[in-house]
Amino acid sequence: MTTLSNSRKVRIEWGDCDPAGIIFYPRYFEIFDASTAALFERALGMTKFKQLKHFDFAGYPLVRTRAKFIRPTRFGDDVTVETAVTFGRASFEVAHRLSRDGELCVECSEKRVWVVRDPATGGIKSQAVPQEVLAKFDT
Amino acid sequence: MTTLSNSRKVRIEWGDCDPAGIIFYPRYFEIFDASTAALFERALGMTKFKQLKHFDFAGYPLVRTRAKFIRPTRFGDDVTVETAVTFGRASFEVAHRLSRDGELCVECSEKRVWVVRDPATGGIKSQAVPQEVLAKFDT
Amino acid sequence: MTTLSNSRKVRIEWGDCDPAGIIFYPRYFEIFDASTAALFERALGMTKFKQLKHFDFAGYPLVRTRAKFIRPTRFGDDVTVETAVTFGRASFEVAHRLSRDGELCVECSEKRVWVVRDPATGGIKSQAVPQEVLAKFDT
Amino acid sequence: MTTLSNSRKVRIEWGDCDPAGIIFYPRYFEIFDASTAALFERALGMTKFKQLKHFDFAGYPLVRTRAKFIRPTRFGDDVTVETAVTFGRASFEVAHRLSRDGELCVECSEKRVWVVRDPATGGIKSQAVPQEVLAKFDT
Repeated sequence: MTTLSNSRKVRIEWGDCDPAGIIFYPRYFEIFDASTAALFERALGMTKFKQLKHFDFAGYPLVRTRAKFIRPTRFGDDVTVETAVTFGRASFEVAHRLSRDGELCVECSEKRVWVVRDPATGGIKSQAVPQEVLAKFDT
Repeated sequence: MTTLSNSRKVRIEWGDCDPAGIIFYPRYFEIFDASTAALFERALGMTKFKQLKHFDFAGYPLVRTRAKFIRPTRFGDDVTVETAVTFGRASFEVAHRLSRDGELCVECSEKRVWVVRDPATGGIKSQAVPQEVLAKFDT
Repeated sequence: MTTLSNSRKVRIEWGDCDPAGIIFYPRYFEIFDASTAALFERALGMTKFKQLKHFDFAGYPLVRTRAKFIRPTRFGDDVTVETAVTFGRASFEVAHRLSRDGELCVECSEKRVWVVRDPATGGIKSQAVPQEVLAKFDT
Repeated sequence: MTTLSNSRKVRIEWGDCDPAGIIFYPRYFEIFDASTAALFERALGMTKFKQLKHFDFAGYPLVRTRAKFIRPTRFGDDVTVETAVTFGRASFEVAHRLSRDGELCVECSEKRVWVVRDPATGGIKSQAVPQEVLAKFDT
């Protein structure tokens, strides 16, 4: 199954970088989280704020992530993040490729779960990704 | 070879958490980066600020990281991070185990490289980890 | 009225600093927010997580902050943050003094409001600080 | 003297928000710092990375900031930040107005200093803003 993907431009900022002058790597995960959100927003046609109400869920936290840092980036760099998703039942895999001027800088693969609030515990629990969501991603 | 390890307590703060009420996962990588620094500080007997001068290097950026998020943490949680390192020539592996009340919440494995400034390019390049560093970690 | 104050130690980390090698100033506000939370936790004898349930409120967002940056701090610095509060009706002023080795580095004054969830709008609204809270701060 | 100003759009992200569902206020200062950089980049025609080399300086850290938080913003909001600057000799004032759908949400005023590296101390020291910089901002 081929699913929708998304590409977005991100500026690496001064405040994203550390005393070595390169990006402090946790910032990449902030970028990737926003890239996942951007893909879902594009596919579902609404912001995450509206998604939470429309689908009555609590987010899609990570169960696993892996990243390879191939080339450093630094403040002033305009990078491109390409994001694609593959769905399981209650989970999905997201792949991000962050590049600058066509050169791959970071590769990331994350596994996320669709969660809803669990009134029994006051916490969250996983649930099958709604068919409506799957249908919107099906291209 | 058995190397030194370190354990530290970290408080998860309100500002580390997202609208789902649990930690925003990029914050874990900030915690892990500080945990790696704490281990090096303990082993080498000086802060990273002094290490950079003493060993004339530019840091130990990541080339790869992998994390498994097993249980969510939330603001007010006091978690323990246990950090251990295994050295290669110019690189090293760092393992972090983050737990709360003895229950494992996150496992992380990172590969880092020892880098120095490269006058030729104005950037950074990898270099063998100094023997003095290896000796300090050897327990 | 004299109210309780609190003092805490904070380590400035590598990832808090920018390419100039000094702390990226938004990190100070993360430190101050956690310092306000630490003072409330000390006074009320419970974490913010438990406070939200016990007092059935939604937090104490800022309406105003002012900060003076007197001396820069950098990674490896252990700083002390002294925090004191003065209560109004539905708002309160918090003063933070961040110092290193007895030298004042940053002064901050913030005004916060006590807010509860507003079922009418789905948002938040201010409410008088509970007497139980005021009593706990009264020394 | 009228100086150049700049306007930019910023998306408030999920990870910028706290368990109350609104932006965690230190994120505003990250946005403002990037907005100051965007104004300088527009005026000077080069990124901050290139500015540091061209003008041989070390940045423009803050000596003071003040912010008023008028309306909360939340994830999914697209806000506009209007930024203007007024120059002194070695310092300058920056004013930011952050609004959503034409409604003012945050006002911020910051005082920054132009600094260069100080070989005598290994730290930084203030210096007059170069005439070339002033000329570029003069509209």
